[in-house]
Amino acid sequence: MKVDNPSKHKIQQQEEEEEEAEQMCRTIEVASVVDLSPQPAPVVTGDEVTLIPPLNFSMVDNGIFRSGFPDSANFSFLQTLRLRSIIYLCPEPYPEANTEFLKSNGIKLFQFAIEGHKEPFVNIPEDMIREALKVLLDVRNHPVLIHCKRGKHRTGCLVGCLRKLQKWCLSSVFDEYQRFAAAKARVSDQRFMELFDISSLKHLPMSFSCLKR
Amino acid sequence: MKVDNPSKHKIQQQEEEEEEAEQMCRTIEVASVVDLSPQPAPVVTGDEVTLIPPLNFSMVDNGIFRSGFPDSANFSFLQTLRLRSIIYLCPEPYPEANTEFLKSNGIKLFQFAIEGHKEPFVNIPEDMIREALKVLLDVRNHPVLIHCKRGKHRTGCLVGCLRKLQKWCLSSVFDEYQRFAAAKARVSDQRFMELFDISSLKHLPMSFSCLKR
Repeated sequence: MKVDNPSKHKIQQQEEEEEEAEQMCRTIEVASVVDLSPQPAPVVTGDEVTLIPPLNFSMVDNGIFRSGFPDSANFSFLQTLRLRSIIYLCPEPYPEANTEFLKSNGIKLFQFAIEGHKEPFVNIPEDMIREALKVLLDVRNHPVLIHCKRGKHRTGCLVGCLRKLQKWCLSSVFDEYQRFAAAKARVSDQRFMELFDISSLKHLPMSFSCLKR
Repeated sequence: MKVDNPSKHKIQQQEEEEEEAEQMCRTIEVASVVDLSPQPAPVVTGDEVTLIPPLNFSMVDNGIFRSGFPDSANFSFLQTLRLRSIIYLCPEPYPEANTEFLKSNGIKLFQFAIEGHKEPFVNIPEDMIREALKVLLDVRNHPVLIHCKRGKHRTGCLVGCLRKLQKWCLSSVFDEYQRFAAAKARVSDQRFMELFDISSLKHLPMSFSCLKR
């Protein structure tokens, strides 16, 4: 007797979806044995330690940060965040110095190759933002830093979609987007956030200050 | 035999300091029996709940938020933060609706009456910022929301002084200040943050992401 097993179909479908997501997201796995001994000392000026957060750095929510592209001057600061992962939203390969930093600090990289087009030729891939949101919402990846090049457009869109999931009204989503994009704010990015459909993500567990506390 | 008791002097000095701080900071104590039962439902548009964060709202660090003046439209959002206290940096009395909101949600108000002068007549009282910082650093007050009128200058200065304690370099402190102040950024505020002496506060325990994690 042939039994149709719907759960098997479900698993298969899930596997296919995961495979698709994997194609969209390049990850760098770090060695499983990670050195968690005290970190190298940050830059010292005189007798004072000085920390240099990356450009456009901010806390988004519990365990979620955003910024522009971090360079080696920012590594000491980033170490204080004890990151578990980074969501990187550009197609360009991650620089060697940054990859080394991730490896020596046990940070996993999730790369989503979103092009940084200028208006009016903007086409933000909704599926990639959706996959990035899933990584972002997974607390096993926290603390996580989201960054692109300048922390304005691609990062702003991903954070904006998160805010929609957090039930923020659109004007507040745009207010935050504009604070980081400043003179470079794009209507097309804001339209993308407005039209982005969150209904398929609503089942995901969320543990953010705005919903949990 | 007369014994000079230095610890007694210390206690007396501490009491005097506390008295002085009390004069600087007006607080509204809430009833000790606080209703922590489920909060009233937020505004519902259609079948969707919509949350409206206050103007210039942002997360500063774990358990610390900043914004402009919240009005009744923002109360549902603020309830999701489960605030324990608010640091209010203006001399004007707190509006009745806001005071009611605090009382019914068990939120303690710390008011520091800093005038909102315009340049070039700016004179930020360093002692008040110092007292506000002590309230801000006390985790028993967390989660805490800092706000003034527009969340730009007074709030920006207090957060900037916190960042100095967190060992941020000045250019990053100013970068953050300017993100919120935008076209209204003041050189005098930035000079205030630069000159603000944090040495007397360094002994205070801090449990922020940038230092603890």
